[in-house]
Amino acid sequence: MDVSKVKGDLVMPNPGGQTDKPGSGNFAESMLPKAVKRRVHALKRLQVQCANIEAKFYEEVHELERKYAALYHPLFDKRRDIVTGAVEPTDEECEWHSDRDEEEELAEEVKEKATIEDAKKEEAKPEEDPKGIPEFWLTIFKSVDMLSDMLQEHDEPILKHLKDIQVKFSEPGQPMSFTLEFHFEPNGYFNNAVLTKVYKMKSEPDPSEPFSFEGPEIINCEGCQIDWHKGKDVTVKTIKKKQKHKGRGTVRTVTKQVPNDSFFNFFNPIKASPDGELDEDSEFTLATDFEIGHFFRERIVPRAVLYFTGEAMEDDESFEEEELEEGDEEEQDEDGDEDDDEGDFDPKA
Amino acid sequence: MDVSKVKGDLVMPNPGGQTDKPGSGNFAESMLPKAVKRRVHALKRLQVQCANIEAKFYEEVHELERKYAALYHPLFDKRRDIVTGAVEPTDEECEWHSDRDEEEELAEEVKEKATIEDAKKEEAKPEEDPKGIPEFWLTIFKSVDMLSDMLQEHDEPILKHLKDIQVKFSEPGQPMSFTLEFHFEPNGYFNNAVLTKVYKMKSEPDPSEPFSFEGPEIINCEGCQIDWHKGKDVTVKTIKKKQKHKGRGTVRTVTKQVPNDSFFNFFNPIKASPDGELDEDSEFTLATDFEIGHFFRERIVPRAVLYFTGEAMEDDESFEEEELEEGDEEEQDEDGDEDDDEGDFDPKA
Repeated sequence: MDVSKVKGDLVMPNPGGQTDKPGSGNFAESMLPKAVKRRVHALKRLQVQCANIEAKFYEEVHELERKYAALYHPLFDKRRDIVTGAVEPTDEECEWHSDRDEEEELAEEVKEKATIEDAKKEEAKPEEDPKGIPEFWLTIFKSVDMLSDMLQEHDEPILKHLKDIQVKFSEPGQPMSFTLEFHFEPNGYFNNAVLTKVYKMKSEPDPSEPFSFEGPEIINCEGCQIDWHKGKDVTVKTIKKKQKHKGRGTVRTVTKQVPNDSFFNFFNPIKASPDGELDEDSEFTLATDFEIGHFFRERIVPRAVLYFTGEAMEDDESFEEEELEEGDEEEQDEDGDEDDDEGDFDPKA
Repeated sequence: MDVSKVKGDLVMPNPGGQTDKPGSGNFAESMLPKAVKRRVHALKRLQVQCANIEAKFYEEVHELERKYAALYHPLFDKRRDIVTGAVEPTDEECEWHSDRDEEEELAEEVKEKATIEDAKKEEAKPEEDPKGIPEFWLTIFKSVDMLSDMLQEHDEPILKHLKDIQVKFSEPGQPMSFTLEFHFEPNGYFNNAVLTKVYKMKSEPDPSEPFSFEGPEIINCEGCQIDWHKGKDVTVKTIKKKQKHKGRGTVRTVTKQVPNDSFFNFFNPIKASPDGELDEDSEFTLATDFEIGHFFRERIVPRAVLYFTGEAMEDDESFEEEELEEGDEEEQDEDGDEDDDEGDFDPKA
């Protein structure tokens, strides 16, 4: 659903504003006869016009996405209600046959005895009756590499209170952007009901580099202020440092607050510099952030249950190639010299 | 512009009908309490509804593509006219300043003398005045790996006559497909004015595997009959074989026609089997064919001049990662144990 991926592979997150700058290429354009070069320039002008039309195409796709977000909305609200336990789905709403029905039926018979015992236990301990789907989103975070990389142990008890993640799109006429909203139950860590991350996009060709336009791309992002309860801010930690007085040699202990690794730093990102002057480390960090934002929007939110069960492909890497065995990859050379190969084809009549 | 790439990385060509089948995942779904499992099933039912809505989204995107194809059309027609020399662009239409203006101006001054001499030569030899942009499309074939892999020497004189490649989209109400049209000048090799390749797409979730739906994908293709002039068919060759009579021991020479490697086999593709029963080799060949078709549609036709000059990124591989230096890739581990690292951040006030 994310058409910022329409062109090429994913949005190319470019915090520093460096897009896929067309190289000078491998073709000696300047070696063309003057008359031909002139015509090539005419084609380039046409190409700029194409890029401008393409920008409008992407605006319309964004419109479509907004339209469809509204259609998915009731389904995602229902999902949230089931996850939180606010609503219990009916039996009809829970009917599900998987591909592994036969296996499962066999397993079911074996487990039936255990199930009956479990049911008895559950009846005996009503307070253990889980509400909704406990730790739904936390489980997703743990199952998905890109997200588990951000997760620290001290984040987990907080993320148990995460009840929904929503994606909102910018309105027509506004600069193109999307917002991730993380909706939390009331909890003992912070007051906010919703934590937000806005991703701002560039959706038009850069006049100085019109050909590097590959569709909308994320260029910046903005977090939000988290109103932590006292002593609960997991994004900072207090450390003690011993300091020795240079002159006197006496030692004192100083406590200071330093940043602490935490998923919740996601809401306090590096700002992309307007003049594009970021050091490499920061550029990389920001690029990763953009990938994550995109991944939430494109994969996690639309298909959450499949990440919960583990059924979804976890990351784009899985999409690069079809599963080929070692032997198949040699196929690429087969279209070489086959003068003596009559075996595979039917000769044309 | 190709929204069959909206989901994930490129259309996943699946000639055998094997889509990214969701694995059983890494989550022991069956270990969930019965009540919770039930709710997970409810979420899966909602997910199927999402997939069906998503299919409609892609239909509307296809509509958009059709609409925009009509907007690009006049520009591409103009391109064809300039390439073939049917129309000479005006000076205004040829104005082009590149990033390398200053360098070029310097180079220009140096070359000016040479240019004046060239111009005198050109005036002296009017029959060498090139029409349009000679060998425009052939040059593109040679510059792009995916295409040059298909190109044989004997194809080149034929491809000099290729004057345009167009993409046509299926009409509303028809099964989703796109057609590549290769328009040729009259030539001594075949009679067809246009060679066509149709790519058929599947644009709805498979009810038995609704979650493997990632947007429209190419599932089959169809070529066309080439009406070769006698003796000009480069897709076949005649070979002589000596055969020894088993009984008598006499030897005879037999001539037979066997397939010959040629780009023009592109118009005689393997058909995807309806029951999905293709051997691995054929599956791979067909998958490659689908990639090529997609690449023509998505990259070559929309941005031809940039492939002619070499400015365009040639293949999707270039899009996978930002250019990082060796040192940067180690960044990924930096968010580990940094208890003692105070250097990089400003402690929160």
